[in-house]
Amino acid sequence: MNYRMIVYIMGQILRIVGLCMLLPIFIGFYYGESHVISTFGIPTFITLAISFVFTIKKPKNRSVYSMEGFISVAASWVAMSAIGALPFVISGEIPHYIDALYETVSGFTTTGSTIMNDVESMSRSCILWRAFTHWLGGMGVLMFVLAVMNSNDVRTMHMMRAECAGPNVGRLVSKSSFSARILYVIYIALTLAEIIVLCLLKMPLFDAVIHSFSSAGTGGFSLWNDSIGHYNSSAIEMAVAIFILLFGVNFNLYYFIALKKISLVWKNEELRTYLGIIAFSTVAIAVSLLGKYDSVLESFKDSFFMVCSTITSTGFATVDTGEWNNFAQTLLLLLMFVGACAGSTGGGMKVSRILIIVKTGIRELKYIVSPRAVATVKMDGKPVEKDVIRGASNYFILFMLIYAFSVLLLSFDSFTMEENISAVTTCMNNIGFGVGRLDTSGNFSGFSAFSKLVLCFDMLIGRLEIYPLILLFGIRRKY
Amino acid sequence: MNYRMIVYIMGQILRIVGLCMLLPIFIGFYYGESHVISTFGIPTFITLAISFVFTIKKPKNRSVYSMEGFISVAASWVAMSAIGALPFVISGEIPHYIDALYETVSGFTTTGSTIMNDVESMSRSCILWRAFTHWLGGMGVLMFVLAVMNSNDVRTMHMMRAECAGPNVGRLVSKSSFSARILYVIYIALTLAEIIVLCLLKMPLFDAVIHSFSSAGTGGFSLWNDSIGHYNSSAIEMAVAIFILLFGVNFNLYYFIALKKISLVWKNEELRTYLGIIAFSTVAIAVSLLGKYDSVLESFKDSFFMVCSTITSTGFATVDTGEWNNFAQTLLLLLMFVGACAGSTGGGMKVSRILIIVKTGIRELKYIVSPRAVATVKMDGKPVEKDVIRGASNYFILFMLIYAFSVLLLSFDSFTMEENISAVTTCMNNIGFGVGRLDTSGNFSGFSAFSKLVLCFDMLIGRLEIYPLILLFGIRRKY
Repeated sequence: MNYRMIVYIMGQILRIVGLCMLLPIFIGFYYGESHVISTFGIPTFITLAISFVFTIKKPKNRSVYSMEGFISVAASWVAMSAIGALPFVISGEIPHYIDALYETVSGFTTTGSTIMNDVESMSRSCILWRAFTHWLGGMGVLMFVLAVMNSNDVRTMHMMRAECAGPNVGRLVSKSSFSARILYVIYIALTLAEIIVLCLLKMPLFDAVIHSFSSAGTGGFSLWNDSIGHYNSSAIEMAVAIFILLFGVNFNLYYFIALKKISLVWKNEELRTYLGIIAFSTVAIAVSLLGKYDSVLESFKDSFFMVCSTITSTGFATVDTGEWNNFAQTLLLLLMFVGACAGSTGGGMKVSRILIIVKTGIRELKYIVSPRAVATVKMDGKPVEKDVIRGASNYFILFMLIYAFSVLLLSFDSFTMEENISAVTTCMNNIGFGVGRLDTSGNFSGFSAFSKLVLCFDMLIGRLEIYPLILLFGIRRKY
Repeated sequence: MNYRMIVYIMGQILRIVGLCMLLPIFIGFYYGESHVISTFGIPTFITLAISFVFTIKKPKNRSVYSMEGFISVAASWVAMSAIGALPFVISGEIPHYIDALYETVSGFTTTGSTIMNDVESMSRSCILWRAFTHWLGGMGVLMFVLAVMNSNDVRTMHMMRAECAGPNVGRLVSKSSFSARILYVIYIALTLAEIIVLCLLKMPLFDAVIHSFSSAGTGGFSLWNDSIGHYNSSAIEMAVAIFILLFGVNFNLYYFIALKKISLVWKNEELRTYLGIIAFSTVAIAVSLLGKYDSVLESFKDSFFMVCSTITSTGFATVDTGEWNNFAQTLLLLLMFVGACAGSTGGGMKVSRILIIVKTGIRELKYIVSPRAVATVKMDGKPVEKDVIRGASNYFILFMLIYAFSVLLLSFDSFTMEENISAVTTCMNNIGFGVGRLDTSGNFSGFSAFSKLVLCFDMLIGRLEIYPLILLFGIRRKY
């Protein structure tokens, strides 16, 4: 294992995080919050100092394989969460470090579950930093490093794989640094578009920036206790719903659109399934809620918003789903596991993985009947490679094993079994809200420090898709 | 597909079921219940008549492949449940047919969940039939047919596979009819041993027979509303716990013991894991409950009984687990999924399947690090065949997909999401009790007819291990 290179990559990533902390400092000055000098100044200095030490010497051996990629990404995510939590503690807005760590992990992993009782009491600079962690974590910090690094090294592909979501990463172009740059350009363009649209719909600029950062990362932090519902505007709700839906699509497809290869977009089976699930769920929930709403339109609007917010793992809320019927709540719970498209900023298991898993299940039935017949699993009309199928199946298995174990660990705490199950579901799929005391109007502050650390681990497991984190913590035993 | 042969096999199976109904008739006469002439007489006559028509002509083409095996077993189980429900309806002890069907499916699949509010009001003959469905369903009716058929046809192996539990069936001897006979001899011997032991512990003979039938099939029906707790005897509770533990062991191992190949038994990794899980869970739950109990011994006794009852999927109860702490309840929930050993009468996913799945997950982690290294999954020191691994993984996937879909279908009913989740868990794993209104002191009568049919399907899916039933209902579309 190339430890020197792992440290070097960590240094690069931490430099980006350190520089990103300058943004809340500027915002703090703009709004006259003088505490930012210490609140964000100290962590920025620490981060940049560590980064300087880590990158002072370029390693001679620059070879990076899967293992190095996974470990450096996992270690960086843990490190940047640990540092990113400092401003909240220094400013005193989140007095306990574990709470601040939970909030920061929830931010970077774009989960959006909070331990805050009253978000509205936070300073502007902290609110911005909190939402900015969503934006940064959504596309990935390593991706940012790759985008700005201008490296010619094709082997950086191994690192991209560790931070990118989905069963397999399709490189857009042969050079991964160029791929990363394209993805970030699309990401920034879509974020700017949302800011402009929200401003046009009369949302204040600061609010628009916060909600666009949250939407872009499909995170879910807001600056209001009642989230997007605060504005009481159907136009804003629909705009946000459509943007989070867009951020849940594989970004490669936007590149195809830019290249005018529209046919490639329509052929994409994952996109069609994703849109199909959203359409079906919206109609099913809206119809089931007809008796509860005065107008059909109102029912469809709330249903569409919550379906988009759930399947993309954003976790914004416009209504209290705890008051919805059992069917609607169960369907939303299942959507949490499905998740958004691979290669998007959304969480969950990803539509393509679920597609492969369902198709593999059907193939198994065929196999049981006639073991000699060769049945292949196809996606987009082409046979799926064996490795990808095995990967998807095993991902599902590992996911469920960690899921079961986490629920058991939480059972030592004082929440009910149902609440614990919903907590693990929401954290591992990076959604943000559960049921009972953890629903859209509740928060996670009631858990013990131990439980919060378990949930932090689950959020990271969900965002980095299991492997990097397990390899990081299992490394000593195996190598 | 050889339809003639499927009908012929169904006829054979139904004949056994018809003849088995003579037992409650005798018992009814003994206890002076004259209604048995119509209650059991009519269904017996119908069953034997159908069986006669189905088997009147031996098919010329006697070839039986997987498909025929699966279809005939699935169709037979549906048919015998439909007929087995008649006595309850005719006697008026369960007035509604769907309820009676639910009770019978719960019996044959050895689930043991009931729709009865007051079991104690039932007639002796019906009580006996109810427990006897457990005994018959535990080892399997087709196995019984094979045991008495004396067929030289080695191809009957295909049929055994459909009814036998676990990732793969190890034939004991080359002729499957002889294998079936050995298994039934062991089964009958163990059942008799339990009857004798319970009688020695001063349980009345009739009670001992009922509880031994229930234990043997790891079903869970009792003749008392408060189950085994009724006798208030630690000796009886411990005896029952040990017997259900024994019925949860792969029966092949008893054959090895009979042949004095003890070393083969100790080498069995599934057995060691099974006993290890039971030991660990008993200690963990007992320790967590120490504060609740006056004596350490009492705590261990209840913990051991409920762990055995849950992991073997029996579902007998001595305490109300709803009053236990969250950790104990969560651990029991997980044990439901684990289940007993393959080739036993227990339900759940089976220890060997879970073992293979966990080992496959670990191998995947190794693969992620170095894709070129060949890592094998081993059981009992030998590499597991690829097909078995793929089978175990896909079984888990199909199980969870059907699980999720069933919970969604139940959500139209009036129970809470937590209760629905527990209902599907208990039915698919053939346990017998859930949480809330479905716990050990509750029952399943509150569900709608539609929900009951969904749960019937889930119980059959759990007992016949998915494939036969899906192939039966999906047959028209695919072939």
